[in-house]
Amino acid sequence: MKNPTASMIVIGDEILSGRTSDININFLAKKLFKIGIELIEVRIVKDCKKSIIDAVVQFSKSFDYVFTCGGIGPTHDDITTVSIAQAFDREIAIHEEAREKLTYFYAKNGKKLNPDSLRMAMIPIGASLINNNLTGAPGYKIENVYVMAGVPKIFKAMVSSILPNLKTGKPILTKNHSFFIGESEIASPLKELLEEFSNLKIGSYPFSKGKKSGVNVVFSGRDSEILELALFKLKSTLEK
Amino acid sequence: MKNPTASMIVIGDEILSGRTSDININFLAKKLFKIGIELIEVRIVKDCKKSIIDAVVQFSKSFDYVFTCGGIGPTHDDITTVSIAQAFDREIAIHEEAREKLTYFYAKNGKKLNPDSLRMAMIPIGASLINNNLTGAPGYKIENVYVMAGVPKIFKAMVSSILPNLKTGKPILTKNHSFFIGESEIASPLKELLEEFSNLKIGSYPFSKGKKSGVNVVFSGRDSEILELALFKLKSTLEK
Repeated sequence: MKNPTASMIVIGDEILSGRTSDININFLAKKLFKIGIELIEVRIVKDCKKSIIDAVVQFSKSFDYVFTCGGIGPTHDDITTVSIAQAFDREIAIHEEAREKLTYFYAKNGKKLNPDSLRMAMIPIGASLINNNLTGAPGYKIENVYVMAGVPKIFKAMVSSILPNLKTGKPILTKNHSFFIGESEIASPLKELLEEFSNLKIGSYPFSKGKKSGVNVVFSGRDSEILELALFKLKSTLEK
Repeated sequence: MKNPTASMIVIGDEILSGRTSDININFLAKKLFKIGIELIEVRIVKDCKKSIIDAVVQFSKSFDYVFTCGGIGPTHDDITTVSIAQAFDREIAIHEEAREKLTYFYAKNGKKLNPDSLRMAMIPIGASLINNNLTGAPGYKIENVYVMAGVPKIFKAMVSSILPNLKTGKPILTKNHSFFIGESEIASPLKELLEEFSNLKIGSYPFSKGKKSGVNVVFSGRDSEILELALFKLKSTLEK
């Protein structure tokens, strides 16, 4: 059985100008990997309707899951919802439960909803809410697309709330080991090993820490004993 | 005159599995922003020929510059070069200058080139080298695509060597200010401001630091006096 596939769309000029360094991608990537959902592609796009729509339409057809972050706040530059609605040809309307949640959170902070904050309760018709216990402003799910906030701690809260409901796969097991030799020296042994263990994926990642440098080899597969065996063989070859 | 546009392709399973957290995107984004090149889109794709080729072909047509990182080492999982060559329908051959550079660096470390390390001197015919003074293994430029290493310190070295030769634009000026109010409260004043200063881009980014929370407003434009004026007006409105 194949593992579910996923893609991610990061929406925001601030990432592309370098003003903000994204940390949501790595957070989501790790979470998905752990539950056997394979993240296949990530796109970072500007606050631009066409770019968002193109990515959503393409990813929604190509992958089991699409996760977006960014652009669902109350200001003029938050254009994710209008883009998502257009991508799925839906109208946008106030979601009553979202309005209640927002009203509650605003009241708790001694504030009233104004027309701008109310924008955060407007979502495409038919979408279901993704809760956010930090600020009350919800994300939402429409078809196979999960629309979430860009602010990292709100993104994390939303991801945590949706993870239990995703269809999981068989987590890919990994085994890694650092060899203190050059990548060129390990290339042939790895190729030979791959011929024997064709079910494994083997990645090799050069590193250097101070004066020490070498290659971190990562075996990925479904069977931990085979991973152990492959690593044992590689060690034997290289330490001959 | 329009500023040059750019895109970036990050190639590597290790980013998508969450094993590695990318830092090259933010590095490149900042550098480009500074010299007025507009980074429009970033894609993170797997070590998969089709994904790399699709992204390269599409980006190469759509943007002035394409920058790639990852997958140009000597091991079996380094498939960037074969993909790039296919994207431009070119053969791959040993580049003599690259071979010399590699030989020199290997000799300096008391090593000899083997057939695997020699793979790093094989680049698409007609491409020109991008130097790397750290390991000798070069990147290369083919058409408007700059193919570079994924290891951050090598990526940085390569970016530094190509930056002086890029066609620059008029750097976009920014001015930002933090207001300690909610994003909903600033939404309407920002919309009004945008009607008056239609040449400006205004981004609003909520933040919270400990107990303090607010919105960082970023004005971007070409004229520093207009940025100053817009900020002055916004301050006056909000501090009334």
